[in-house]
Amino acid sequence: MIDVITFWLDWFGVAVFATTGALVASRKQMDIIGFILLGTVTGVGGGTIRDTLLGNLPVFWIKDPRYLVTCVAAVSSAAFFLAHIPHSRYALLLRFDAIGLALFAVTGTEIALDANVEPIIAIAMGVITATFGGIIRDILGGESPALLRREIYVTAAFLGATLFVALAQFGLDRSISLVAGFVITLIIRLGALRWNWSLPRYRPRPGQE
Amino acid sequence: MIDVITFWLDWFGVAVFATTGALVASRKQMDIIGFILLGTVTGVGGGTIRDTLLGNLPVFWIKDPRYLVTCVAAVSSAAFFLAHIPHSRYALLLRFDAIGLALFAVTGTEIALDANVEPIIAIAMGVITATFGGIIRDILGGESPALLRREIYVTAAFLGATLFVALAQFGLDRSISLVAGFVITLIIRLGALRWNWSLPRYRPRPGQE
Amino acid sequence: MIDVITFWLDWFGVAVFATTGALVASRKQMDIIGFILLGTVTGVGGGTIRDTLLGNLPVFWIKDPRYLVTCVAAVSSAAFFLAHIPHSRYALLLRFDAIGLALFAVTGTEIALDANVEPIIAIAMGVITATFGGIIRDILGGESPALLRREIYVTAAFLGATLFVALAQFGLDRSISLVAGFVITLIIRLGALRWNWSLPRYRPRPGQE
Repeated sequence: MIDVITFWLDWFGVAVFATTGALVASRKQMDIIGFILLGTVTGVGGGTIRDTLLGNLPVFWIKDPRYLVTCVAAVSSAAFFLAHIPHSRYALLLRFDAIGLALFAVTGTEIALDANVEPIIAIAMGVITATFGGIIRDILGGESPALLRREIYVTAAFLGATLFVALAQFGLDRSISLVAGFVITLIIRLGALRWNWSLPRYRPRPGQE
Repeated sequence: MIDVITFWLDWFGVAVFATTGALVASRKQMDIIGFILLGTVTGVGGGTIRDTLLGNLPVFWIKDPRYLVTCVAAVSSAAFFLAHIPHSRYALLLRFDAIGLALFAVTGTEIALDANVEPIIAIAMGVITATFGGIIRDILGGESPALLRREIYVTAAFLGATLFVALAQFGLDRSISLVAGFVITLIIRLGALRWNWSLPRYRPRPGQE
Repeated sequence: MIDVITFWLDWFGVAVFATTGALVASRKQMDIIGFILLGTVTGVGGGTIRDTLLGNLPVFWIKDPRYLVTCVAAVSSAAFFLAHIPHSRYALLLRFDAIGLALFAVTGTEIALDANVEPIIAIAMGVITATFGGIIRDILGGESPALLRREIYVTAAFLGATLFVALAQFGLDRSISLVAGFVITLIIRLGALRWNWSLPRYRPRPGQE
């Protein structure tokens, strides 16, 4: 049951993140192959790092090539429909990124739990899976790195993954725990975008550099 | 036979890409150790990512240290002779990069085919091997990422790898298919540099961002 | 004996590099979760790449979660005490980075020697472990990459790792060789910072680009 849910959410996360890669590609006026490469790297990037760190090699999209097909399809659809969107693509990019972040925060955690790692490692894997696809996208696409954004971002993935692991540890059904973690990540990130939520930041005293 | 061809072309690709790393290092006025590090990372970077994704660990240059020796030798030769080149090093960088791209597009594909992956994965591995050494070089060297270039780049590697896989699937001799893929990648990329070939790009409508 | 020394030096290196990540995070005015992510990635980044290349998977901090706890503790301490430091955080960052560089240059080399690789590979692993945590930190934090710095940096790690391997090859006790490599790396890097030591750099002739 949890395997089926994880598969579909993970697959959906790949499609959503691939779309954000296409959105960055469109902002940079890349050609179609640039769209596909940046979309695919963004879609499978977080999970690729997760699988490598865990030693799950070859990585998931080599074992199951349908993930690549998904990326190409998502990118192509995005490229086709983007031309008809009257409003800001950057706002759209942030919303898709939020959905992908929430999906990967819990599927990354679940795949790590499935590999029998410690709870703190499972949370770290969720955060890494959720954030590194976007980080790679921003570095390759020449955008300012996601890590430097003002509003809550990594924190949302961290809280969602932590809630998931905590509920599962306390004996709640794993599928329900996973969905709870997903919902809380999504709410926190979308709320942060909508109302500009942010944690207190380090402020240097005058004279420091 | 194909193993021998692959070994030599792969080895030559490492030397050529290491030279492009040295060319970037010279543009940034690095010292000799900076030359060697950037040259080596560029030379073995694409193949390292390929081996990691496939689970061929330790990576090829740990198994066979002659690759490192090759990088150091290529970088040293480049550093020595560069001082005597009257014309633009950037033009030279792009030409060497084109040769490395064509070599790695087919050797990366061949090594993946040898690991019995699906054809679409073999093509993806060829493209990754061909492009990621240069991408790492540009990020570490503080150059504008190769992905954002106007003329055809990733597309050349994609078409060459696809031709190689297609010909091999249709039963043509694997060595001949490999050479055909190499030649087509090289012609497309050099043609793109010479005549500024590019695919149509995404153009936003006024008012979008 | 050497295992115990390596463990403690490696653990100390993780803490020191995590602190440099926190220092960059404070310069960029990140929030607490940004501090922890950047600090952790910096602390374990070099060793993670080393383990991946060698095929020591899952990576060390998945096998032993205390490394993550160390990173969080080091980052939290840094964040707490940083507010009370009157002088330049950048100078502090460079000094901590020098200590981490010297520690990882020898522990990275030792872990590679322990995996029975060739001497040249062990040196390369020491250099990679020592430098890539800082490189990832600078890329993610939007700082100018360490590789482009004027004063001796990679060279210090290279000389220390080479001295360690050379002494061990000549039959000197491995623990003593390791400490010698550490001391020489630290002296060279701190001296380079203090007196602006640098190797000759490539200088283009007029008219080149």
